[in-house]
Parts: sequence; structure tokens; C-alpha cells
Amino acid sequence: MTAVTQPTLYDMGLRAKKAARVLRSLPTDRKAAALRAIAAELRARSTDILSANARDVLAAEAAGLPAHMVDRLRLSEKSLLAIAADVEAVAALPDPLGEQTEEKTLPSGIRVSQRRVPLGVLGVIYESRPNVTVDTAVLALMSGNAVILRGGKETVHSNAALEEAVRSALSAQELPADAVQVIRDPARERMLELLRLDDCVDAIIPRGGAGLHRFCVENATVPVIVGGIGVVHLYLDSSFVQTPADISSAAQIVLNAKTQKPSACNALDTLLLARAALPVLPDVLRPLAEAGVDLRADPESLAVLTEAGLAAQAAATEDFGTEFLALTASVRVVEGLEEALDFIAEHGGHTDVILTRDDAQASRFVQDVDSAAVMVNASPRFNDGGQLGLGAEVAISTQKLHARGPMGLRELTTTKWVVLGEGQVRG
Amino acid sequence: MTAVTQPTLYDMGLRAKKAARVLRSLPTDRKAAALRAIAAELRARSTDILSANARDVLAAEAAGLPAHMVDRLRLSEKSLLAIAADVEAVAALPDPLGEQTEEKTLPSGIRVSQRRVPLGVLGVIYESRPNVTVDTAVLALMSGNAVILRGGKETVHSNAALEEAVRSALSAQELPADAVQVIRDPARERMLELLRLDDCVDAIIPRGGAGLHRFCVENATVPVIVGGIGVVHLYLDSSFVQTPADISSAAQIVLNAKTQKPSACNALDTLLLARAALPVLPDVLRPLAEAGVDLRADPESLAVLTEAGLAAQAAATEDFGTEFLALTASVRVVEGLEEALDFIAEHGGHTDVILTRDDAQASRFVQDVDSAAVMVNASPRFNDGGQLGLGAEVAISTQKLHARGPMGLRELTTTKWVVLGEGQVRG
Repeated sequence: MTAVTQPTLYDMGLRAKKAARVLRSLPTDRKAAALRAIAAELRARSTDILSANARDVLAAEAAGLPAHMVDRLRLSEKSLLAIAADVEAVAALPDPLGEQTEEKTLPSGIRVSQRRVPLGVLGVIYESRPNVTVDTAVLALMSGNAVILRGGKETVHSNAALEEAVRSALSAQELPADAVQVIRDPARERMLELLRLDDCVDAIIPRGGAGLHRFCVENATVPVIVGGIGVVHLYLDSSFVQTPADISSAAQIVLNAKTQKPSACNALDTLLLARAALPVLPDVLRPLAEAGVDLRADPESLAVLTEAGLAAQAAATEDFGTEFLALTASVRVVEGLEEALDFIAEHGGHTDVILTRDDAQASRFVQDVDSAAVMVNASPRFNDGGQLGLGAEVAISTQKLHARGPMGLRELTTTKWVVLGEGQVRG
Repeated sequence: MTAVTQPTLYDMGLRAKKAARVLRSLPTDRKAAALRAIAAELRARSTDILSANARDVLAAEAAGLPAHMVDRLRLSEKSLLAIAADVEAVAALPDPLGEQTEEKTLPSGIRVSQRRVPLGVLGVIYESRPNVTVDTAVLALMSGNAVILRGGKETVHSNAALEEAVRSALSAQELPADAVQVIRDPARERMLELLRLDDCVDAIIPRGGAGLHRFCVENATVPVIVGGIGVVHLYLDSSFVQTPADISSAAQIVLNAKTQKPSACNALDTLLLARAALPVLPDVLRPLAEAGVDLRADPESLAVLTEAGLAAQAAATEDFGTEFLALTASVRVVEGLEEALDFIAEHGGHTDVILTRDDAQASRFVQDVDSAAVMVNASPRFNDGGQLGLGAEVAISTQKLHARGPMGLRELTTTKWVVLGEGQVRG
């Protein structure tokens, strides 16, 4: 086992801290060059990486892992080239560092400003996809951070090969290889050690399901950025169903929201419908029903859907306020906007959408709804780093501290106060 | 006991969430009016508040609490008026809410921006000073947040009286009294419940010593903003001791840094001295020695201090990297800037200062040192919300996530994404 020869977690933390000190002062062009070197190294080592990945795939199949999970960990020549291209895309992103607030001279005479700096050392814990290893490493590097990665045990060989490629490229660029370290020992104890490495690690970012996030929150003493968990609502107002074109638009948005990627955290969970819009509900939901979505409807909407010959079943209490992550959606009639807002105040928080032609309603919705993303007349699937213009995304935060919504390079940074004096003391 | 009649923590959380929904849409003038009403109510109820406080003081004396701790919990007519005046000062601060980033139209046609909004519900845990009850409540309210407060058990009567004044003023202003709730049951279990109230509380802010912060970090599942802990270094370069005026300035800064408020987290802990400046060390430290500061010096500096007749003792290993919070300081000779930077990289992180006349050195120090505040030629005591121009301060964060350094109203807020579309779906 390679695990035996790796340093302890605390040693890895100290090495990461040392590397972080070098990274935080690197000019943009050196970071970009390092990323381009990593992309080149991934291409140069593709045979080794794919053969390490094949070992993981064989082991996973032998262990009886479900086919869709084996697929998630499989790399191909093509997917590896795509990963390398993504690395080069990150290298071309604007550098968030160095930005500084306007310097203010205060009554004491000191001049103060805040300067954007890297977080320092990140700990990222994720599940089976090996592309996350490279993706996270280069986002960390480009934002001036060192990173300790803990991937799934199913991808241990793939991750080791990818780590070697990244570290070798860093060394060739005369940068500290310890800026990127993968924990090779799959034991759960190592993950727990990482979660409690306060002296060295500045933030833990989990990338995975609700269980992983909860495990991190329950066990970490390092601050955790929780994300990707939450219920997505869409409120359809009667003002948006007055014309055939609008009804068709509503149907397209709902279809996109639910079916474009049902496993995503920004996929629709619950449709709230103004009572006055009830007659057109079958038109709005027909594409969903045809796409095989399991519709769980409240009594009023169920009656209308059934009457129209659409397959639906009676919703249970737990079908509301539930994140489905599958081709399932719940449907509920509300009197109007205010009831929808009350419902969202109780169950929302991730991405919530209103479809309306009434500007006053739209403003009220945007003001009242307290979610990571609030949308008017658009699919909730736009709550994504790429779609919102961040260029890349390390995670979607659904907590309120530090970052909220998609996290790009800038969200991997913090600030420090810079105070310039001429001998001032505090009076 | 009042505790028996209070709702459960979970009920308090739900009430706070409901109140937060009202607060987050309040215009600035209504919040400011509420704060002025609170100030008036504190003045109107001063007799009741002071008599409740007298009960706490008597109980504390009877329990044999040390005099300086009894002093911390004592209120007077004068201190109560000062608290009310502080409330009015917060009412006059600029409102951080409503600020919005420039709207961008993305290739998909959606228009996106980020809007500043309150965190929601804060949990603040603090020790014996009752002024914190009012201070924290009004900073939370002015930034649009609801707050659940958990003070020390020594101030239970004072806090109940202050809470009643605040809640009564809120009700009179037709605002939800549940925006401010004090946990009256002093049992540790209630504090643990607050730390794990994820469903309702968005952030925990501890205000107190290192032990309290550690307790919160170890036990909370709600994100915690850790602060106020850390070692403060001052590096004195030889370029700053070339004239009698500079030597005198260095002595004044060091004196201010260490003695203006020795119990503060931004007071000096360790003086690092360039070897070339060693001959003037007695001149720099004489005011400190005369102020009775316990000096712990490394062998080189000890020899020079002793030779000059200044009282000092040999530093132990643990005198470096230690936060003293008392009239104690450690002194260490380094070869020059680079050795100082290495030392600070290992032990710093709160406030670190360089005294230098060399601009290149100053730039290098500001770039390399990764602390909440980095200062050139000024006292570290300026790392404070009031001194850095924030107007008020709820805590000093020494972690890197969310906020770093003094936290004012703006640091009690977050952002949400606002997406405006015209029927767009994701391709």
C-alpha cells in the first residue's frame, strides 16, 4: 500500500501551509503557466492515468458497485483530454487576488484598506469522480491556495496517478509540489483528522451528497462550507398563463427545470401554482408527464391532472420540502403570491423561481425570498457557476457565511486589513 | 425561575426565523427608529434595570466571584446612559443592506446580480458583561437580523431586564419582539441546543475567551465565527532606530501596543528585533519596564537589557507563540526581516506590525504576512472596528471564512443571487 509511506495528516498540513506561503505571493502568469504545465502533463501521462483508472474500474466491478457508479469513476482518453482542456480554461480566468479596497485615511491619521488574499490551505472531501481531483486542485492553485484532497476509496489509484501528474508539473515549474496533496489512505480516521486539522487547514469544502456534508458538519472543527443541499420551488402565477405562448414558455421552463439534469441540486422539486392558473395545469405539466416524471399532486391539482388524463398520484406530506434528485416532482395549489411566499419561507433556501408578468409581484418575490438564488422567469438550472458567469465552480454554497451560491475563484479567497501609519499610537 | 416559562430552544429558533423574515425587508429609517426607541426605553427603565443588576452583583459577591469579574458585570446610571448613547450611535450608521452588484447580461440572456441581505438569525454566546446584550441586539437589528442571545449565568437578572426593555421597544414600534430573545435558562444544555440549531440559526458568534470559542467550535453544527484569539508580533527593523526621534517613536508604539489595554486581543505579545538594532533595545523597552511589564527575553536581548539595568528574565520556549492578555511580553533577536517573516509565518495570524523606514521592507512585510491585520509603523491596538472606521464592532474574526478582522454591520450580512429572465431555459 502507498498509504504506509505517506506522511501523517499533521505533516501534510504543515507542508501545505509552507507551500501556501509561496503560492500567496505568486504573480498571475506563474500560476497560469503552472496550470498549463499540469494540462500538458495530464496529456503526456494519459496511458499511465488510464491504466491506473482501469484498476479502479475493475476493482469496483469486482466489488459489485452499481453500473452508474462505475460509470462515474471511469476515465477515457476523451474525458482526460476534456479535463486537460478545463485546466487550461481555468488558467485563462481573471486572478481574484491583489484587488484592494480604496485606501481611507482615518481621524487618527492611519491609512487603511483591505486586500484580497488566498484562504491558505483548503481541505476538499469528495466522492467517486476522479475529475474532481484535478478540477479542485487547479481552482485552488489559481486562487493561490494549497489543497489537501480526500477522494473516494473507489478511485484511489486514479487519484494517485492524477496527483503525481499535478505534483510533477508543479515541481518542473519550480513550485512546491506540496501545494497539492492527496490523502492516499482510505481509512475514515484520516478524513476525521483532516476535519480537525485547525492549525493548518483554513476551510473544508465537501463535494458530494447530503450525508457527506452532514458528516463534515458533525465532525469538523475546521470551518465547513456546506452546499448543494436544498429544495427548489417554482411559483407559477396566473399572469404567466394568459396566452398560449406564455403557457408554452411555462411548460418549457418547468420541463427544463425538472428534466435537464434531475440529479442536480438546482433541479425543480416543487411546483406551486396559483389557483387561478389551475385550468392550464395539464398544458404546463404534459411535457413532464410525457418525460416520465413521477408527479405527486395535492388534491386540487390531482383532480385536474387526472381529469385531463395525465398520470399523477396523491402527494404525501413529505413530498413537500423534499429534495428529490430524481424524476419526481410535487405540485401544490396556493391562493396566490403571499401563500407561495409563506410556503417558500418554510421550505426554500436553495433556488426559488417565480413565473409572472406582474412587475410588482416579481419585486416582492425577489425581496421576500431568502434563497441562495432568486429568479424571475428563468429556469432554476441557471444557479451554476458557469451559467452565472463565474467561469468555474468549486461548489455551490447553500449556507450563508462566506459565500452563497456558486463558488468560483473569488470565493476561495479572503481579505486582510492593511494599515499604514507614521508612528501613530491609539489614544 | 423564569426559565421554566420560556419556550424550548427550537421554538425560540422558529420565532426568530419568523421575526427575521419581517426584519429583512425593513427600510433603514424604521430600523433606526426602533433603535432610538430602544435607547429611550433603556433610559425610562433605568431603575428597574439597575435593581436587577444589583441582584446579580450581590449574588456574584456572595458566590465569591473575584472583584474584577464583579466589576465587569456591574452597571451604573452612567454606564447605562452610555449604553443608550451607543445604541443611538448605531442607529446613525449607514445601512449595509440593499447594496447590489452591477447587473450583468450573460450569453444566455439572463440578467444577474448579487444583492446584500441579512444573515437571518444569529446566535451570540458571551460571558459576563451585560452591555453586550444590548450592543449585540442592536447591531443585529440594524443589519436586519434576528438574534438569540446566551449571556453568562452571573448576569441572568440584568439580561432579563435589558431584554424586556428591548422587546418592549420593538413591540411599541410594531416590530416583532422575537427579533431579540435571551436564553434565560443558564443550563449548559441550552447552549448546546443553540449550537446545534441548524434549521433556524445561520451563524454563531462567540464573544469571550479562547475556552468559549473552542467550546463552540467543538460542539456547533451551525457555522461559528471564531475571533479574538491570536498572537501579536511587532518587528523592529534597524532602519527605524537611526535617530533619537525614531527610537522614541518605537518606544511609544511598543508601550501603547503592550500597556494601553493588556487584556485586549490586539495587545503586543512578542517583540522581534533586528540584531543591528540591539544596542538601542534598552531605550525602546525602558518605558515598558517602568510600566512594570514582565519581560521574557532570549539570551542575546537578555544580556543587553540586564547590562542596561532593566529588569527582565530568560524567556522559555513557550513564551513565544503565546497570547499573554496581561502585562507580559517576550523579546527575541532575529537576523533581519526574512527571519522575522519566518517566525511570524509560524506564530502569527492576528495582528502583526513592522516598524521600518525602508519602503521595500514594508511592502515585503505587507505582502508576506498572512494576518487579519498587517501594519506598518502603527500600534497593533488599531485592529479594532471603531479604529478602522467600521463605526461599531460585534467581534473580531481571526478565522478566514466570511469575515476577517473587526466585524461591523456589513459583516453581519450575506448576499443572494438575483436572476431576471424572459423565459430562458438552460441549453
